[in-house]
Amino acid sequence: MLGLMQSQQLSISSLIEFAARHHGEGQIVSRRVEGDLHRYSYKEAAQRSRQLAGVMDAFDVKQGERVASIAWNGYRHLEMYFGVSGSGRVLHTINPRMHPEQIAWVMGHAQDQMVCFDLTFLPIVKAIHGKCPGVKCWVALCDADQLPLDSGIANLLSYEALLAAQSGAYSWPDLDENTASSMCYTSGTTGNPKAALYSHRSTVLHAYAAALPDVMGISARDAILPVVPMFHVNAWGIPYSAALTGAKLVFPGPGMDGKSIYELIEQERVTFAAGVPTIWQMLLGHMEPNGLRFSTLKRTVIGGSACPPAMITAFNDKYGIEVLHAWGMTEMSPLGTVCTLKNKHLTMSDEDKMKVRLKQGRAIFGVDMKIVDAGGRELPWDGKTFGDLLVKGPWVLREYFQGVGDAAPVRPLIDGWFPTGDVATIDADGYMQITDRSKDVIKSGGEWISSIDIENIAVAHPAIAMAACIGMAHPKWDERPIVVVVKKPGTEVTREEVLAFYEGRAARWQIPDDVVFLDTIPLGATGKMQKSKLREVLKDYQLPDLR
Amino acid sequence: MLGLMQSQQLSISSLIEFAARHHGEGQIVSRRVEGDLHRYSYKEAAQRSRQLAGVMDAFDVKQGERVASIAWNGYRHLEMYFGVSGSGRVLHTINPRMHPEQIAWVMGHAQDQMVCFDLTFLPIVKAIHGKCPGVKCWVALCDADQLPLDSGIANLLSYEALLAAQSGAYSWPDLDENTASSMCYTSGTTGNPKAALYSHRSTVLHAYAAALPDVMGISARDAILPVVPMFHVNAWGIPYSAALTGAKLVFPGPGMDGKSIYELIEQERVTFAAGVPTIWQMLLGHMEPNGLRFSTLKRTVIGGSACPPAMITAFNDKYGIEVLHAWGMTEMSPLGTVCTLKNKHLTMSDEDKMKVRLKQGRAIFGVDMKIVDAGGRELPWDGKTFGDLLVKGPWVLREYFQGVGDAAPVRPLIDGWFPTGDVATIDADGYMQITDRSKDVIKSGGEWISSIDIENIAVAHPAIAMAACIGMAHPKWDERPIVVVVKKPGTEVTREEVLAFYEGRAARWQIPDDVVFLDTIPLGATGKMQKSKLREVLKDYQLPDLR
Repeated sequence: MLGLMQSQQLSISSLIEFAARHHGEGQIVSRRVEGDLHRYSYKEAAQRSRQLAGVMDAFDVKQGERVASIAWNGYRHLEMYFGVSGSGRVLHTINPRMHPEQIAWVMGHAQDQMVCFDLTFLPIVKAIHGKCPGVKCWVALCDADQLPLDSGIANLLSYEALLAAQSGAYSWPDLDENTASSMCYTSGTTGNPKAALYSHRSTVLHAYAAALPDVMGISARDAILPVVPMFHVNAWGIPYSAALTGAKLVFPGPGMDGKSIYELIEQERVTFAAGVPTIWQMLLGHMEPNGLRFSTLKRTVIGGSACPPAMITAFNDKYGIEVLHAWGMTEMSPLGTVCTLKNKHLTMSDEDKMKVRLKQGRAIFGVDMKIVDAGGRELPWDGKTFGDLLVKGPWVLREYFQGVGDAAPVRPLIDGWFPTGDVATIDADGYMQITDRSKDVIKSGGEWISSIDIENIAVAHPAIAMAACIGMAHPKWDERPIVVVVKKPGTEVTREEVLAFYEGRAARWQIPDDVVFLDTIPLGATGKMQKSKLREVLKDYQLPDLR
Repeated sequence: MLGLMQSQQLSISSLIEFAARHHGEGQIVSRRVEGDLHRYSYKEAAQRSRQLAGVMDAFDVKQGERVASIAWNGYRHLEMYFGVSGSGRVLHTINPRMHPEQIAWVMGHAQDQMVCFDLTFLPIVKAIHGKCPGVKCWVALCDADQLPLDSGIANLLSYEALLAAQSGAYSWPDLDENTASSMCYTSGTTGNPKAALYSHRSTVLHAYAAALPDVMGISARDAILPVVPMFHVNAWGIPYSAALTGAKLVFPGPGMDGKSIYELIEQERVTFAAGVPTIWQMLLGHMEPNGLRFSTLKRTVIGGSACPPAMITAFNDKYGIEVLHAWGMTEMSPLGTVCTLKNKHLTMSDEDKMKVRLKQGRAIFGVDMKIVDAGGRELPWDGKTFGDLLVKGPWVLREYFQGVGDAAPVRPLIDGWFPTGDVATIDADGYMQITDRSKDVIKSGGEWISSIDIENIAVAHPAIAMAACIGMAHPKWDERPIVVVVKKPGTEVTREEVLAFYEGRAARWQIPDDVVFLDTIPLGATGKMQKSKLREVLKDYQLPDLR
């Protein structure tokens, strides 16, 4: 027997129309490429999203076809979120930090029909437009009079001119909630990038979940600064959750330095900010020497990579800001776990609370997770045993987008579970902690050594700026760890001093066999260390006892 | 093109399994009919819910068939929420305050196969069991040795004995998310009661929404006391949202008096409580003379009927408790609006904030609403114009359950919108305020007079305990209001004094034409004034100028 409730499909257009109708005056503030602050309301955002839908109709971009963005966090990018997806096209957000060759490759793979970009990224467009014959038009996110005259791009148009030609009298289509809405390519360390293809259903369910008190806790009283880029897994879903709650949005545009971020937080009375640890490091680096304080900021979500304990402490103790550790993936829309306390923790000491806060957190309803051994057997939740982390849920990927054509689908699931490629522990209260990436964990004599643990010890040394731990093949132990170290400018440290530093901080068998000093460690487009490149650099390296 | 995310159905079994897995030690505390406090965990709740599913299998209760509860708020009732619905049966929660004749009628209409009841309600079961031949077994929510021996009910069984015979090794069925999960009959002032039939999808979406910071703001740090009964629209969905977040649950059982509620709040460190105004009045009535304070309570949601301003002020100013005004209906699962502030209100004076707080609030994402005139034309959101309130959304009723058979479906929707039967204003910020029930609003000379406004003025008089305003037919004005008044014990007030009290408090044409003094005003099963019965009492009444 079926229930007798209304059968309304979950849709992205309903998010922006809800915000326009029930939070019409809710503000969206954007620092623009032009340098000034732009300010408008949800009502205007909805109107312009509808105008954008009209533009795509005019260019005959069909349902399900892809429209790309290469843009900072800002109001025009937000209009693409709602206008492109809401009208039944698929928004393809491109990471401008990728190599132009790679950008051209993903655009060809996605068969993008239209590309909208901030003028900052004109050099990228100049470099690739010749390689993208399928693109009907290149749209610069600017006024008509700002359009570069000598770009050499024949089909270059102004976003504002295109919008001005549309009335906004547009009705969103009624879409099946499983319709594709947006896509994001993973950086993929091996082979070509693969894309996650989100649906309206997965996006709206994620938007509900992301706003929960135990996740980002978003309300209509918030002013949210998503520093995490809108090209990076939909800015963790914040634009959708903001529309769902009517929260004020504050977009930093290209101004990602500590000073710009601080000023925006204060000026726009930001209550909640989200970003990767690097950003917060820059913010703290600006505030500390200048003796600055926050007057409205209450909490931050930090994700993308593990947050250094010192940063959590600095925010918590010095500035009274609640730091939420979060974990997710492109394949998870992206949120999987957030580290918020439980009722039982409230009476704990601050020190014990901090031990909980250092973990990546517990699963959000919708997501389930487990850890398994090499044979796929589920491992206990004791906070010590670590294994491969698998997840499932309605906003977790089922298969990768392999392009339109006859490419074989890539179906990574194992009995319905997505293998994250992370190695983790889970404690009895369900708090998960990433110990390593599956490919980075060092398998030594049947035991696993977390490369992250070894790196964290190294960077605690006052003379070490960066450290990477990698496993080197060993005939007896399978692998043995070495640590690659970048010294802080003006400091000195020897191999022996580094190894001595591990004494008492790691078990004897976990201590690296060697220390390699380099001037730099290769970083990827999202700021993560690229261990595969590091291995290339060290291809002639030999472990001490094998020399 | 469809998205490529996992296609997991939304289900009620996943709520309790999530809580058991990720919040296994989360507590559920219940005051029992026996008088003592029972305490267990989500893990045990899930285990016993599975055992209950096994019991229904053993009795051959089929998928989609109805199982009824006549019970207080407690852990066994919670097990029915998950065990009955999760296993594919439909939970029919019965309001024990209905007349036994009416209870027998709804049980026959729903074709309940099994009925579980608290021993408090044995007299009801004794009175009706002979009239319910379709019921396979009557299950008393007690141990085997508490089972009454002389009940005269042949098929009477002990819940605990039945559960003890089941191992709990049970796998929840994979259900289509649109499968019916539970039902609730409306009190229906005309004709027989009609039922709302909820689905797994509507219930889970409502559970996400109800936990949002702008709704009930439920987290794993909360200890929730739902005083609102579990037989009253699923206790506003709190049991589901609690499992979704892992919040501690505290059930009052039959102890609804001010002293019992206060002690439970303090003892179990309750942070959040939900109930109708009458309950809070009793609580304040216990606290004030005893000089008591709350040590952990932070907020309450008050709904079911409009909350008197004095109560909001008392909680806010005297006890520092945030009072959230909410509005919903059985046909809405039930939540429609909650009154939480927006970013723009934060800098307002307390007085201006209070003006906002007195409204029923703004729509939760998922719900849309509008007000229309008699011709169905949408009216402006100016906070003044009032009209019939219509709603829609995925947890709003499409049609009523009319029983299994050939009864014609009752489809109340008007162009996809559900007519609430309420008359309301909506202001420019989307805050809705109920001004009356459609059937109670007085139509006088082409203008509408809110009966609630007239009643609120009367009860502000120190000598008046209760007041009901009703419209009386008038040949010239169509209707004219009169006010029916119950005096407070030991006080006196005259007709002329009451009418004089309206001077300056209502427009001249809104002032009642007459005052009628009665000893009592008839109340319905949910504590609301029954104006239809009042009209029967006054059937021979004549307006002064028609005598």
